[in-house]
Order: sequence, then structure tokens, then C-alpha cells
Amino acid sequence: MSTEVIRWGILGAGIIAHKLASAVQQHDGSELLAVASRTPAKATEFAAEFGIDGSDYDTLLKRSDIDVVYVATTHNFHFDNARLALQHGKSVLLEKPFTVNAAQAQQLIDLAREQGVFLMEAIWTRFLPAQAQLKEQLDSGLVGDLRQLNINFGAFVPPHYETRLKDPNLAGGVTLDMGIYPLTFANFLLGERPVDVQSMAEFGATGVDEWANYLLRYPSGVMVNISTSCSLKMKPEALIYGSQGYVEFPEFQQGNRYVHHRHDGGNEVLASDTYELQRHDNGFVYQVEEVARCLAAGELESPVIPLAETLSMMQLMDSMRADWGFRYPFE
Amino acid sequence: MSTEVIRWGILGAGIIAHKLASAVQQHDGSELLAVASRTPAKATEFAAEFGIDGSDYDTLLKRSDIDVVYVATTHNFHFDNARLALQHGKSVLLEKPFTVNAAQAQQLIDLAREQGVFLMEAIWTRFLPAQAQLKEQLDSGLVGDLRQLNINFGAFVPPHYETRLKDPNLAGGVTLDMGIYPLTFANFLLGERPVDVQSMAEFGATGVDEWANYLLRYPSGVMVNISTSCSLKMKPEALIYGSQGYVEFPEFQQGNRYVHHRHDGGNEVLASDTYELQRHDNGFVYQVEEVARCLAAGELESPVIPLAETLSMMQLMDSMRADWGFRYPFE
Repeated sequence: MSTEVIRWGILGAGIIAHKLASAVQQHDGSELLAVASRTPAKATEFAAEFGIDGSDYDTLLKRSDIDVVYVATTHNFHFDNARLALQHGKSVLLEKPFTVNAAQAQQLIDLAREQGVFLMEAIWTRFLPAQAQLKEQLDSGLVGDLRQLNINFGAFVPPHYETRLKDPNLAGGVTLDMGIYPLTFANFLLGERPVDVQSMAEFGATGVDEWANYLLRYPSGVMVNISTSCSLKMKPEALIYGSQGYVEFPEFQQGNRYVHHRHDGGNEVLASDTYELQRHDNGFVYQVEEVARCLAAGELESPVIPLAETLSMMQLMDSMRADWGFRYPFE
Repeated sequence: MSTEVIRWGILGAGIIAHKLASAVQQHDGSELLAVASRTPAKATEFAAEFGIDGSDYDTLLKRSDIDVVYVATTHNFHFDNARLALQHGKSVLLEKPFTVNAAQAQQLIDLAREQGVFLMEAIWTRFLPAQAQLKEQLDSGLVGDLRQLNINFGAFVPPHYETRLKDPNLAGGVTLDMGIYPLTFANFLLGERPVDVQSMAEFGATGVDEWANYLLRYPSGVMVNISTSCSLKMKPEALIYGSQGYVEFPEFQQGNRYVHHRHDGGNEVLASDTYELQRHDNGFVYQVEEVARCLAAGELESPVIPLAETLSMMQLMDSMRADWGFRYPFE
């Protein structure tokens, strides 16, 4: 692996862009060079905050000293912005949801391959230490044969997110924004993709899905049962059931603490072990590390979130929306 | 209401019959007169244990001093045994699942109405004090507008139940035996019946459903998400989510303790109140009281579990089994 420093640019100047900028600046192998926004004042302010250059998109993308561009605009712009960056020959880290639908995702994947550049969905939770350790433990038989996952992920969306998240013109809705976390968590832990999907959603006043339930069946026979909402506080919880025990992971989405209950196939819990891992305050650091590692190694996609997996996730969400008869106005 | 004593007979001499017999003997307004079994030795032993008469079915049903017959045979015999009792003009308390399918249920309901006798599904959990109090509180707005219920109900079946529960010839399977509890709990709390149902099940070596997930949508827009298994220890839990708070009821099926978390529409829990109710050790006492009350009052069905509700539950389970392509050998 090379020791070269990876030089970053960011498209978008919102809350998530701030978090990624901070993560890049905390990573030894990365350097943040520039930000771009459609709103010049926002680019200027963001640039001043991080001591970097601020500009419009074209100016940033034409710079030859930027290796990788992080796209952190609203969902509806992911496709256009990422395509523009790829067309400029930049590697791209694209905020989740990767695109609005699978057709867009396929086009970006094709374009990245044509251009021979790196492309990755910024599904940062897959890179967190607790998630990675838990997957290793499950693969080693921590709970015996896996049988079922139950995951709740719901909260009232804070006011500064609410307008965007509930706006169909911005590709809002709980599934693309929040449901994707338990879905990717399940695929990640199981190392496979669902073959049978059922789902049910309720829609709010603005016409996007605000409450949703997903049932998934995997090739191994494991079933996954997910509840999610952007308009309801739920008890945060992932329960991972196996033949010999189960794991409780209350803050599965970004937490660093989970509990393994061993029952050896009976109804009595024989032992409970708590695992608590150190984790960087800014959870984006781990995906920044992975991007830098891939670029240094010349890898065009990450084995932790391969493009085929990203495409499959978009297809899954497409199929559920189709079942609900839910299309975005611009689709 | 009359003060007459209700005189009981029991068909079946298994574990559940013992529990009901004990409940009847603990109820002041009831008297247990006789038990009947297809196996004479079991009837004799049971009769000796409770100080009552033991016989075959016909002998018991021909007695004019028995008001109500509790049917506690295996699922596959519920229909035949209950029909026989109704044909003899007896009121009937029929162990859940009421029958194997809705067609059988409809026939029994029709017969009871023709005979002018009382008939009730022995879904005893609806009569427990904690369930009744919780329903009243939810109706009074304890959690604001109800939005979603998540219920887990799974355990490894004890060996003495396992053979019966996993035998398709005895109408085994997790749905008819265990899934019915969270289903009836949801219908009971919501006071309505699902209009949209999706489900997914996995089948064990004997060919019955051993793991199942149900998604239900109710006319009010509430969604209910249930996981159940007879071959997996699950964390016992009912979570009842509303706009202003949620209730955690860990042992919803027969427990007497639940916790209300108030958040007033935000993500922070502002207060948690625990409710713990006294409850008779033998939880069947409450349904015995209800049967006695109905009979004394001349009511032919219970308002807590009306026959239309019982029929609807059988139709619901029929429809899920149809979706899975699962029929019992004798159907």
C-alpha cells in the first residue's frame, strides 16, 4: 500500500458534509482541499470553517489535485452530482442512499467502470468497529445457526431534517433515508441478499413513507423483520437470534456496545456477555480510512460495500416502493 | 345476575385440562363435576386427582346436571368434540385455536346458535387483569394516537409439548398454537381487525411452521409486526407505539407488569411509569369467571371474545396458511 496522501473535495455544504469534512481532517492519510456548493455563500462559509477552498461544482471538479469527491447533496441530486464528478475522472464517495433508484445506480456504476475510477456508497455504519467485530463473531458461530433478526429503527426526525426528509421532490421518505440502515445491517451481517421480500408502509401528509415494516427471507432460511419510522420514537434495538443464543444490539446503527446471551438451545439464559468497543467520536472516520485504503491500493470498489451490493439495495428499495405504488414525482 | 353455581365437565385430560380444572375448583361460582377421556385410565386418574367423576365422552355429555363443557383435546379434535357437546345441548368453552380452520369454526358457531347455547374460544389471556387495564388506558390515550405494535413471542417448546406441536396430523405449527396469542393481543388492544396481511414462515423437519412473521394493517392505519417461533428463544416483548409515548410489556402473553414511557412526541423519554397488577397464580380463573358470568346472565357469547372475532381469527390464520401453501393432511 502506498503512503501517498488522498486529497478530497466535497460537493454539498450541509450537516453531513461538515461531518465528513471533519473526519477527513482527522485522518492522517487524507487531506481536505475544497468544498463546492450551488449556493456561493454556503461554499465560502464552509471553506472558511475548514480552512479550505470554496467554489462552484465545475471549478472544484476541474482541479487536477483532487483524487476523490464526496457527494453530500440531497437524495434527488446524488445521481447528477456523482455523474458529473465521474465524468471529470474523479473517484467518488456517494452518500447513501446511493441514488433514488436502481436504474440511476446502474448508470453510475457503468460510468465509473468506463472511467476506471473508484466508486463507493457512503454507508458508513458498515465500517464501524462494533459492526465489524459482531459480524466476525457471528460468522464464527457466536449464536449458533442464525435464524432471525428483528430490528427497530425509528425516531422523530429533528426539525432541520424534517423538511427535506418528508419532501417527495427531494426523494424523501423513511425507507431511502433510514430504512436503508437496518437493511444494510442485515445484508452485512448475513453476507447474503434477500430472495423474498414483503413490506408495508404508511404515508404521511406530504406523501412519503413515514412508517414502514419489511420482512425479508434470505437464501440461508434466515428471516429478517424490520420496523422503521421517521415519525415515531421506537425502542432502538437489533435482536439477532440463533440456535444457541442471541445478541441484543440496542444502538445497532452506530453504537459500540452489544450483549450476547447464551442459552445453548434452551429457554434459560446461561450467560450474558457485554462487548463494548472504543470508537472514534466521528463515526465517518472509518469510511474515510476505507476510501483512502482502496485508493492507495488501486481498488475500484470496497469489498465491504461492493457496487453489486449497492445496486442490490437500490433494487430492493425499488421493489418495495413498487409494491406500495410509490414513485417520486421526477421518476 | 343469578347466584346459581355453574357446573362444569371437561373433555380431555391433558396438561391444559388440569389447569382449567384447578381454576374451576378455585372459582366460587363454579363446580367441577366430571372429566372424560378417550383413554379410560387417564379419565380415572384425572377424576381421582380432582375428586370428580371420570368417564367416556358420551357418558359425560348425557348428564343433565352439566351446564358447560370445556374442550381441551388436541387441535385436530376440537371441531368433532365441540360439535358433539353442542349437539348434546351443552354450552362450550373451546380451547384455542378454536378449530383448525374457519370453515369448522363457522359450523360450530351455526350449531351453537341453532341450539341456543353459549360458545366461547378459551383465549384466556384476554381476561387477565393487566391486559384489560392496558386496553382501557390505551383507549383513554395513554400513548396518544396508536401507530404501531411490535410483538415477539418465541421459545423452544418443552419436550412434552413438542411432539404434538410439531405434528401436522395434530394440526401443529407455531401459528395455531403460539402465533394466535400476539394476534389476538393486537386485535384486543386495537379493538379492530386487520384489513391487510402479509406473512412469512419457515417450516421444520416435520412440515409445520416453526418460525413465522406477520405484518398486519388495521383500518385505523396502525401496523402490527409480529415474530413468533416454537423453535427459538426470543426476547419476550410487546412494544406499543403511539404519538406521545410507548408501552413495553415484556411478558404480554400472561404477565402482569408493563412500563409506560412518555415522550410527548419527542425522542427523549420524559417519564417512565411501571404498572404491576396482582394476578391469580392460575391465569385460567379469569376466563372461568367470564364463562360463569355469561351463563348466569343468559349471554350466548362473551363481549370480550365474540364469536365474530373468533371466526375472523381463524380466517386470518387460514389466509396466511394459504399464502404459504400449507394445508393440514386432513384438510
